[in-house]
Amino acid sequence: MTVEPSTEHRYVITLSCPDTTGVVARISTFLADAGGWIVEAGYHSDPSTGWFFTRQVVRADSLPFDADELRERFAAVAAAIGPQSRWTVSDTAVPKRAVVLVSKETHCLHDLLGRASSGELPVSLEAVVGNHDGLGDIVRAHGVPFHHVPFPAAGDPRREAGKVESFERVREIVDSHEPDAVVLARFMQVLPAHLCERWAGRALNIHHSFLPSFAGAKPYHQAYARGVKLIGATCHYVTADLDAGPIVEQDVIRVDHGDTAADMVRRGRDIERLVLSRGLRWHLEDRVLVHGNRTVVFR
Amino acid sequence: MTVEPSTEHRYVITLSCPDTTGVVARISTFLADAGGWIVEAGYHSDPSTGWFFTRQVVRADSLPFDADELRERFAAVAAAIGPQSRWTVSDTAVPKRAVVLVSKETHCLHDLLGRASSGELPVSLEAVVGNHDGLGDIVRAHGVPFHHVPFPAAGDPRREAGKVESFERVREIVDSHEPDAVVLARFMQVLPAHLCERWAGRALNIHHSFLPSFAGAKPYHQAYARGVKLIGATCHYVTADLDAGPIVEQDVIRVDHGDTAADMVRRGRDIERLVLSRGLRWHLEDRVLVHGNRTVVFR
Amino acid sequence: MTVEPSTEHRYVITLSCPDTTGVVARISTFLADAGGWIVEAGYHSDPSTGWFFTRQVVRADSLPFDADELRERFAAVAAAIGPQSRWTVSDTAVPKRAVVLVSKETHCLHDLLGRASSGELPVSLEAVVGNHDGLGDIVRAHGVPFHHVPFPAAGDPRREAGKVESFERVREIVDSHEPDAVVLARFMQVLPAHLCERWAGRALNIHHSFLPSFAGAKPYHQAYARGVKLIGATCHYVTADLDAGPIVEQDVIRVDHGDTAADMVRRGRDIERLVLSRGLRWHLEDRVLVHGNRTVVFR
Amino acid sequence: MTVEPSTEHRYVITLSCPDTTGVVARISTFLADAGGWIVEAGYHSDPSTGWFFTRQVVRADSLPFDADELRERFAAVAAAIGPQSRWTVSDTAVPKRAVVLVSKETHCLHDLLGRASSGELPVSLEAVVGNHDGLGDIVRAHGVPFHHVPFPAAGDPRREAGKVESFERVREIVDSHEPDAVVLARFMQVLPAHLCERWAGRALNIHHSFLPSFAGAKPYHQAYARGVKLIGATCHYVTADLDAGPIVEQDVIRVDHGDTAADMVRRGRDIERLVLSRGLRWHLEDRVLVHGNRTVVFR
Repeated sequence: MTVEPSTEHRYVITLSCPDTTGVVARISTFLADAGGWIVEAGYHSDPSTGWFFTRQVVRADSLPFDADELRERFAAVAAAIGPQSRWTVSDTAVPKRAVVLVSKETHCLHDLLGRASSGELPVSLEAVVGNHDGLGDIVRAHGVPFHHVPFPAAGDPRREAGKVESFERVREIVDSHEPDAVVLARFMQVLPAHLCERWAGRALNIHHSFLPSFAGAKPYHQAYARGVKLIGATCHYVTADLDAGPIVEQDVIRVDHGDTAADMVRRGRDIERLVLSRGLRWHLEDRVLVHGNRTVVFR
Repeated sequence: MTVEPSTEHRYVITLSCPDTTGVVARISTFLADAGGWIVEAGYHSDPSTGWFFTRQVVRADSLPFDADELRERFAAVAAAIGPQSRWTVSDTAVPKRAVVLVSKETHCLHDLLGRASSGELPVSLEAVVGNHDGLGDIVRAHGVPFHHVPFPAAGDPRREAGKVESFERVREIVDSHEPDAVVLARFMQVLPAHLCERWAGRALNIHHSFLPSFAGAKPYHQAYARGVKLIGATCHYVTADLDAGPIVEQDVIRVDHGDTAADMVRRGRDIERLVLSRGLRWHLEDRVLVHGNRTVVFR
Repeated sequence: MTVEPSTEHRYVITLSCPDTTGVVARISTFLADAGGWIVEAGYHSDPSTGWFFTRQVVRADSLPFDADELRERFAAVAAAIGPQSRWTVSDTAVPKRAVVLVSKETHCLHDLLGRASSGELPVSLEAVVGNHDGLGDIVRAHGVPFHHVPFPAAGDPRREAGKVESFERVREIVDSHEPDAVVLARFMQVLPAHLCERWAGRALNIHHSFLPSFAGAKPYHQAYARGVKLIGATCHYVTADLDAGPIVEQDVIRVDHGDTAADMVRRGRDIERLVLSRGLRWHLEDRVLVHGNRTVVFR
Repeated sequence: MTVEPSTEHRYVITLSCPDTTGVVARISTFLADAGGWIVEAGYHSDPSTGWFFTRQVVRADSLPFDADELRERFAAVAAAIGPQSRWTVSDTAVPKRAVVLVSKETHCLHDLLGRASSGELPVSLEAVVGNHDGLGDIVRAHGVPFHHVPFPAAGDPRREAGKVESFERVREIVDSHEPDAVVLARFMQVLPAHLCERWAGRALNIHHSFLPSFAGAKPYHQAYARGVKLIGATCHYVTADLDAGPIVEQDVIRVDHGDTAADMVRRGRDIERLVLSRGLRWHLEDRVLVHGNRTVVFR
């Protein structure tokens, strides 16, 4: 039998603000006065920026009001803390929605489908958009719609115009689902700046290197050429600056002289799968707070 | 585009024998005389047992004869080395076959299906046998037959007899495919001794602990109770001695006081997937040589 | 130039108590009312025991009173939270003291001496007690007194009585320093029950296996015999139950078929050094809260 | 008692050459004909360069001649393999010699001293050269000479000339010991090109980042600014191209948002120690074969 950890009904509160004495006291007093039972709490004071970050998880049945009223009341607490406060309140009874963009490398997609269908990842996969055909049957067998949006090939004279049209089609599909996460699961097209902007803080990419090493194309081949002894992968928020957005998660595995670039491509997939699924989970569970180009991750 | 490392046609030779001067010279001279181009070679002398182990990979097009004749000729070399020599010759043009046994925890199955369908794992999945229903659609969408073989429930008065019948049905399905690997992908039934014997050296299990710690039932709950700081998984050959067969691969991840037993169950799945897929790959690529209760793994 | 993180003057508060609504509010309100600037805070609610744990670090210069008055005032807060509350207040201006017990395997001792003399580990090494001679010169070159307390050899007819005398001498030396930590840095003698009791919560041992696997003697040889693919080390509090005390830290490294038991002994030292120095640091920084046989570690 | 793995008398042979059929046969036949008992053997064929690499360890008592005669005879084998062959023969009865260069960050030096004095690292430390004073007592307590060679400070008007003189003094000390390894153990001076050339293949540096990320100055501060989730260290051969020489070993540890740049400096030391001591060990045991800017490491 599948045992899942957090099937309880909970509210997840996050707050970022300039650090000052008494922030924790305000929040905890507010929650204590309402009878709130805190089951998880993370706090972080950043000495380099002077900002404070917190994430609190409260049992829904311990509060005498619903999520909407919690939002209303917490807005007042946040306002009292200061005008720069940024906050969110999520309700675990409302599943987060994701759309996955994919290309020919399908290992991350297969992994996400498996995790979603076994109930392991707390997500409702709304749609998969692929720029190659042939994945439809498997995706649909998981109960997820598949959209094929072809992109113009390298030699195509209408390539730039065609890409604009294809991305417009992708945008329509994505936006129609109002997703909490847009997952670039080895989607080999560079997202145009206006979509990076539109989906800021929601679009997660998996890059197949340990950034900042080997940004850009063919990172495993770059890694092979440099003779590194570990290869890695990086899950980051997408920004208009290619492969330079805030990092959510990274990991590495050991390689040695016996690994060709092709071996690295194959072995790196294990790390890509893990790093993307961890980063996505943390994003969906409101564990990631972005500040400038750095992230606070309350694991 | 998917890049796969070893699409070249190759022969894989393994040999185990009591160690003595000149074994490497005999094998390498045999291959050199035939013009064999060795692309990978592993050697191991075990001081504690006095045995020698090797695995050699030769380009098929460098030899003037086929796999059957290589077997015939290599048999003579092995015999000359000594009567205790054990050897194998595999042809990478003949895909290895596997049958997967699964229960309600489906994460390893999803992972293997994804790896097989993307061409990442060098295997032909011949069949999946499950003791619960409901997986058929997804398995078949991957082009793999699914067989539902129910097992009697805990309170069933005919339980022992029913299990014998169910295992007989499993045996028939498995044996009909003459598989190179029988994969217990979180198959929650203990294999009877006669099947351990029948599939000796071919049946791989994934156990959800870092063995020898926490053998038996509910290992994550045992781990939680002991307060360990890392949890793990173990891929091992199945023997009649429960969770005590030769270990092929193990790995761990860090947990902390914030992880409940249910969190460990969830987080452990990542390690189970990785460890099983690595162990299975190495088995299929003839990288694992068993001696007594220990393994030599030429990675 | 050596850069050290926490040279600021700080107070470290820890509290464990049965979980109930409002504990965080009480503590944070107490600190906020006094103007306390919290620079680090960890909280943990344990659903399996119903206990709550916290560790808070406050800038000393933000409070209008000294450590003694903080203790007095915090005692009242803790009492108001409940009669089972356990708490500590440390002052980082008062260095923690440690005594190290060592035998013939000296790698952990060398490591601790190096860390202490470079200022990396926040500890005052008060003394080293060794049951073999020959380490005195190096220990004293680090400015640390060395005491040689021989233990009777295996065949000695007066062995049991001799051990009692030796341990009495060890106890005298240790107690004369009133240490915050008694570090068994591969001290090969089993501590008698009355000393385990006397130094409860202060005596840290490094065991050279990933417990609970391979407790007792010659763990690397046990690991070799079982054919595991990772070896590890465990730092735990010493209790009268051998190698079964609360675990503070563990880690592992990969081994393979090429590693003999002697290789494992050598390679395991790297993990022993790391695990012991991490566990000791966390203990000295009041990051470890023990509850039953489990630990909460606020890293 | 300290158990050391390879106290047996052995010869270590390495060979690099363009790959061709029959190289293994030639070497193994040569050794077999002489009665040589191979206890360790590594082979690597590099498909991208077409080169072949091997390392063989032979029991000295199995050969009817000494190291010098082995060199003479093996020279003939290597010549017969081809004119580009590069080879070495080492005798484990002749300890390898190392000189360590150090600055103010002393953790790697302390680590190497501890490893050498406990017999764990197979090396004779001939001298330590430091550009700051104050380490002499501890170094000499380990039985190793310490030389203080001051370098001109940042504002010194004679800085460039002074550096030339200081490096000339370092060169004299180093060369007087004819070391097998020149270890830059966090030596903060950039080696001039003529010394990189002079000690090519013998000078090992530890850089405190996971190269190629964060080459140059203050890598931990660069890592903090980029918000990476792992930090690392790299042991590489020194070349005139700063931080760009062939990599011998790398490793990483996890950091999170709670780690300041100063925390990374402290925590990174654990990885620097490990990576440098591993890289140095492999170099001393002739496990590292350099080809172009990449290394083959027979672990």
